[in-house]
Amino acid sequence: MIEKVLINYQIENIPIEVRTYEKGVLLHSPLDACEGLFFVNSGCLRVYILSPEGREVTLYRLQEGELCLFSASCVFQNINFDIYIEAEIESTIEVISIAEYRKLQDNPAFVNYVNDIMARRMNQILQLLNDILWNRMDQRILNYLKEEAQIQESRELTITHERIANHLGTAREVVSRVLKYLETNQQLVLKRGKIQLLDES
Amino acid sequence: MIEKVLINYQIENIPIEVRTYEKGVLLHSPLDACEGLFFVNSGCLRVYILSPEGREVTLYRLQEGELCLFSASCVFQNINFDIYIEAEIESTIEVISIAEYRKLQDNPAFVNYVNDIMARRMNQILQLLNDILWNRMDQRILNYLKEEAQIQESRELTITHERIANHLGTAREVVSRVLKYLETNQQLVLKRGKIQLLDES
Repeated sequence: MIEKVLINYQIENIPIEVRTYEKGVLLHSPLDACEGLFFVNSGCLRVYILSPEGREVTLYRLQEGELCLFSASCVFQNINFDIYIEAEIESTIEVISIAEYRKLQDNPAFVNYVNDIMARRMNQILQLLNDILWNRMDQRILNYLKEEAQIQESRELTITHERIANHLGTAREVVSRVLKYLETNQQLVLKRGKIQLLDES
Repeated sequence: MIEKVLINYQIENIPIEVRTYEKGVLLHSPLDACEGLFFVNSGCLRVYILSPEGREVTLYRLQEGELCLFSASCVFQNINFDIYIEAEIESTIEVISIAEYRKLQDNPAFVNYVNDIMARRMNQILQLLNDILWNRMDQRILNYLKEEAQIQESRELTITHERIANHLGTAREVVSRVLKYLETNQQLVLKRGKIQLLDES
């Protein structure tokens, strides 16, 4: 709960709104008003960008206990990129409104905490940039599948090639070709609508 | 001068070190210790990352009056990416040491200012990510040449295809091919060791 975090900064009595979103619901898109800080109480949010052709690229995921800054992007000057936030599984979110958040900006310790989070997100985005620039696609797909296995808590994943392609900003054909290659390499087994990750992969 | 910025936050008497770097000097690499905040007094810094193969990709440039946060990355937890900072032309930098910067972290207005800068950098990196993912290479090269024309204050640029390729993280051959295409399109003229940008490009 966000209260536990705020107490570290001697902040109390902040009004908090609790919301629950079904799996797949879009919490935020560039057309939405700026709502405030989202704190993930349970579940998982996926933050992504969209290409003109409608392809999605995941920037990062927010797990339980993590704070989403982009949902409050209006309080950070200079942010003008188009971000989408989706509930990847059923998720409960605590929301601190913009008005309340502005008050917290007088608290240097809390602002430094926000600063650290911003740096962490920057880190994740640079990691992704690195991946895109230099990693071979097979490594990117394998990394993605491992992450997915943790979320689904299973090494047998129910996932389409289309969905993997959307995540990684590539074409379905590329994903199918690479998965086939990974199967030949004995890192996974392809089944109808499923992918079984093998040990050591 | 950074003093002008600090005065906005009622901050005075901060010891500041002034340094001048020749064109092309590397101010910071991942092996260097964390030095403090760099403020660009005159000139231009280029912040870039390096691939395992040694290719450079420019993240952004810092012009006069801008603050470099990555030179103080040790004060931001969670930053662990490898950043290089180069003086793109002769540049004079004011440095606030880490110890002094830590004191400034008690000042909420200043920390919010740093937060805004962090958001701006994030913006620039996301723009780059966008460029890499979706823009056509000809547009990227043209954008880069226009930026270069502003820095060199001339539309006749002394620049090699190799250097353009390094900036954009691509191969020299790709750059040569695209420049040829842009020439056919009457957006520029290729000369020995030079590129002449034409009007409207």
